[in-house]
Amino acid sequence: MKPYEQLIEHAREIATIQSIGSILGWDQETMMPDGGVAMRGHQLSYLAKTAHEKSIRPCIGQWLDACGTDSQLTADPQSVSATNLRELRHNYDRATRLPTQLVEELAKVTSTARHAWAEARKNKSFEQFKPHLEKIVTLLREKARCLTMPEHDEPWDALADGFERGLLARDVVAVFDPLRESLVDLLGRVRQAPQPEDRFNTVDVPGDQQLAFVRFVAERLGFDFSRGRLDLSTHPFCGGIPGVDVRMTTRHAANMMGDCLGSTMHETGHGLYNQGLPEQTLLEPAGSHAGLSIHESQSRLWENMIGRSRAFWTWAEPELKRIVPGRFDELTAQDFYVASNRVEPSLIRVEADELTYNLHIMIRFDLERAMLKGDLSVADLPGAWNERYRSDLGLKVPDDAVGCMQDIHWSMGSMGYFPTYTYGNLLAAQFFEKACRDIPDLSEQVATGLFTPLLSWLRANIHVHGARYRAAELCQRVTDQPLSAEPLLRHLESRLAPVYGL
Amino acid sequence: MKPYEQLIEHAREIATIQSIGSILGWDQETMMPDGGVAMRGHQLSYLAKTAHEKSIRPCIGQWLDACGTDSQLTADPQSVSATNLRELRHNYDRATRLPTQLVEELAKVTSTARHAWAEARKNKSFEQFKPHLEKIVTLLREKARCLTMPEHDEPWDALADGFERGLLARDVVAVFDPLRESLVDLLGRVRQAPQPEDRFNTVDVPGDQQLAFVRFVAERLGFDFSRGRLDLSTHPFCGGIPGVDVRMTTRHAANMMGDCLGSTMHETGHGLYNQGLPEQTLLEPAGSHAGLSIHESQSRLWENMIGRSRAFWTWAEPELKRIVPGRFDELTAQDFYVASNRVEPSLIRVEADELTYNLHIMIRFDLERAMLKGDLSVADLPGAWNERYRSDLGLKVPDDAVGCMQDIHWSMGSMGYFPTYTYGNLLAAQFFEKACRDIPDLSEQVATGLFTPLLSWLRANIHVHGARYRAAELCQRVTDQPLSAEPLLRHLESRLAPVYGL
Repeated sequence: MKPYEQLIEHAREIATIQSIGSILGWDQETMMPDGGVAMRGHQLSYLAKTAHEKSIRPCIGQWLDACGTDSQLTADPQSVSATNLRELRHNYDRATRLPTQLVEELAKVTSTARHAWAEARKNKSFEQFKPHLEKIVTLLREKARCLTMPEHDEPWDALADGFERGLLARDVVAVFDPLRESLVDLLGRVRQAPQPEDRFNTVDVPGDQQLAFVRFVAERLGFDFSRGRLDLSTHPFCGGIPGVDVRMTTRHAANMMGDCLGSTMHETGHGLYNQGLPEQTLLEPAGSHAGLSIHESQSRLWENMIGRSRAFWTWAEPELKRIVPGRFDELTAQDFYVASNRVEPSLIRVEADELTYNLHIMIRFDLERAMLKGDLSVADLPGAWNERYRSDLGLKVPDDAVGCMQDIHWSMGSMGYFPTYTYGNLLAAQFFEKACRDIPDLSEQVATGLFTPLLSWLRANIHVHGARYRAAELCQRVTDQPLSAEPLLRHLESRLAPVYGL
Repeated sequence: MKPYEQLIEHAREIATIQSIGSILGWDQETMMPDGGVAMRGHQLSYLAKTAHEKSIRPCIGQWLDACGTDSQLTADPQSVSATNLRELRHNYDRATRLPTQLVEELAKVTSTARHAWAEARKNKSFEQFKPHLEKIVTLLREKARCLTMPEHDEPWDALADGFERGLLARDVVAVFDPLRESLVDLLGRVRQAPQPEDRFNTVDVPGDQQLAFVRFVAERLGFDFSRGRLDLSTHPFCGGIPGVDVRMTTRHAANMMGDCLGSTMHETGHGLYNQGLPEQTLLEPAGSHAGLSIHESQSRLWENMIGRSRAFWTWAEPELKRIVPGRFDELTAQDFYVASNRVEPSLIRVEADELTYNLHIMIRFDLERAMLKGDLSVADLPGAWNERYRSDLGLKVPDDAVGCMQDIHWSMGSMGYFPTYTYGNLLAAQFFEKACRDIPDLSEQVATGLFTPLLSWLRANIHVHGARYRAAELCQRVTDQPLSAEPLLRHLESRLAPVYGL
């Protein structure tokens, strides 16, 4: 076999191990009985360890070097081979720049920290979590040091690169600063207007009826249930295997049907992207997704641009009344629209509305960046967190469980991740503006439950490329514009105007 | 690390890989969407290949040799270390006596044959399956040649050893010959008596009600749902991970509730055994089960000795009427008892009654043995099969789909397996006779839905030993008698007497 073929076979083996872990991970959250916890942890860490060992084998470096001299493979930089080589080189270089001891230490510390975090959150005691987070920050600073490249200005950059290739804090700041200003201004105007009533999320709906409706919606959006499933889990997610076996989950609570619908449409966005990735390169880096921001753009587009739109509710209102009979007889499409777009600053990121959500992200970005730089000590995190929630959202944080310990990310050692959520929102708005220009009657289609043209547009413009382009390049190619906060701001203005009479 | 510790760590690694495959296998049959078929095949064969490669590593032989000189490890032949070493030596010797080329050839041929078998069965065409079965028999004869030990008389012995340690055809013959005679005699008497009406399996019951009842029964028998699940699959099975995460399945069809109940109690028997295996040696050979015959004895004991008993139906009748209201109002406990014990020779093994089931097994044993010996050509299999169904069961076989192609086993290369089913029946009866002696009011307990004493007896006498004893030895130790056909015959006589007025 030629070096390129050996390289790809090896990459496919690692991806096979990861795909096995993905199914086990899904099972753990949806099906596994309590008794299986310890054994599942053992299985998953065995798979992770095996995949990691295989991903740092020196032969990979030799194959990559040999491929580097074969100009045919990279002649077309957008070819499958060029994409594969670029991704594999990046992953290998990052993996091998980390000393094994640091990798193992981080795995050990974060494994303990995740449990400590859950306990500490339950006990509302930051003191319990503090020593773990301190260790994590120390190790992450060391990790960042190992991974720093010439283009990086600060530790955050080196870590963010693992989630969103090439994302730099200075670029994030350049986007976030004007965005924050506009969002705060918009929020101020909203808060001066009377708050409309939520007539949707105040109605009790049995779980099986909620599920019947959201399953119907997911199918109508285009999710292929012969290549995927929708189940229940505490925290909704989308896992499984891209292309062939996509496992998404949702959740339901009696008087929170909007949450069940929103979660389902969000995960369906991820699921449609995963089902649309190029099948020819399944298990190869080129067939993978284009990074977390692009992935999130797909979930947000369906959850927000579609799921909270007036057009969607024109279609969904009678369908909801049909599948959940007798509970919403008094409500109009406008009532559902208003309920889906109420803005209300709140403490919890994952429950936030479309506007304030991004303010939550910006706080996390600023604080994790400061911790990594050494400008903020872990001991001072709660104070800094609470002050920002007061200044940015006008809220008093009653305890750290609903404050700086609400998210799992930092306990897992994931710093540099949060901004991809807001980048997802920005990209979703920018993609959607372009889709509306390319499909002039898109809104009328949605109002009649016709989602295929939009899905086809996303397939052709985004999904089909797999990992060929990264977020910034894909954004430029699809929308003819660099990433900008303007589309999201325009979207929010026009979305909230009819709700708050702006 | 000492050689013994290295050996056990290695064995645990292989068992970890197999436990991962077990969860994926369960998922494949219960949850996986159709789109996942090819990828799942790829994942499972990757895991199987990896486990096999690890199980033939020369270092295992070196560790085993080193352990052999440490008499402390084997001083007590029933200790965990002695059991582990005995099992690992046996597995290693068998695995390494097979040339890799033969292993790969068998994997390839049986993989193709399984598909060909399914197609041929659908088309009722033995001609389509014949070339595949011919290749399999040739390869199995070669496999048997590699595995033959001094104690083996014929190829069948070497293959059976892989399913039931030390099982020899001559011993099977010594048990089967008198058993056949007695069963045929009993069948003759039954067939002269009037056939009672089946008032149970003629009533349509919705699937969810069937499931609610059998789940209730499984729980009452003692299945711990915090360490296991019950789901649906086309063919019921019990998989998952012994001790901590046992996955059993059942099936339901409208007017076959007895099948759903019987399947569930059967798999619950396997499940209870798996949940009762010693937890301290999870993933070690010593903590595994004692072979297929013992495993089957546990499923048969709950399915047949309990599930078809008059005492069981005394308890179950009102419970069934409570959980499935309105459908069985006219029926008495006696009606359910009679319906559960009707004897009717039929073509399909898995649908057979408790008496004729063993005749199906004997036919398969004789024919696979003859094929392996070279006394029966594959081309002559359908003729031989049909003749035996005529002579032993008095049935005409209309086509090979319901004849010699009904079972999947041979297409998978499993010859030497079938007799473990009848051994399970024999052991179940022999164990149950002893349990009835040890627990004098067992029948009264069952009639009030009290199953804990029987389960405790099985746990203490059988489950807790794991792989410490093999079937023959365990039988002798538990019942003070060698394996014999008498208990099963006594059981059938007393079971059928009140139904057929014998």
